Amino acid sequence: MYGLIGSFKAAPGRRGDLVKLLLAEAGALPGCVSYVVAEDPADDETIWVTEVWTGADAHKASLQLPAVKAVIAQAMPLIAAFGEHRETRPVGGHGL
Amino acid sequence: MYGLIGSFKAAPGRRGDLVKLLLAEAGALPGCVSYVVAEDPADDETIWVTEVWTGADAHKASLQLPAVKAVIAQAMPLIAAFGEHRETRPVGGHGL
Repeated sequence: MYGLIGSFKAAPGRRGDLVKLLLAEAGALPGCVSYVVAEDPADDETIWVTEVWTGADAHKASLQLPAVKAVIAQAMPLIAAFGEHRETRPVGGHGL
Repeated sequence: MYGLIGSFKAAPGRRGDLVKLLLAEAGALPGCVSYVVAEDPADDETIWVTEVWTGADAHKASLQLPAVKAVIAQAMPLIAAFGEHRETRPVGGHGL
């Protein structure tokens, strides 16, 4: 499996809008096993997204889906800065 | 919901054993919505664990379960160092 752990800061006051966008396609992506959008309780801007995919190829293919491209296009203006970006190799767990 | 993103380094050569331990109770914890154990592909020691719980209280209660206490006691000697530790507030996603 292929995993991602990432964070980014929303533009001031836009975290809620950004969260909504990120969740819009969350359940409908082929090969997406887990996709969690979380707020950082320490501030009003930071969002954490943790993902598990059947493989890196599934994740890469998702970025070509029209619906995902549309979300990314709408989300980019709402992102003030990118933070952490980690690739992982999930080996098991619960909720996968 | 209550989320955790954490990393730690296994003692040399013990990542596999540590992963097995971490997965032992993964599916049986009341209030645990998602629990993903992943290796960091960049080295042979780092493990990432991302968790989602119904609430901080459920997570806290899990640490008192005999089975979890046993896993922690067995795992500690296999952990060389702790890394990231982030608390998050999951708001939605897939696989929850």
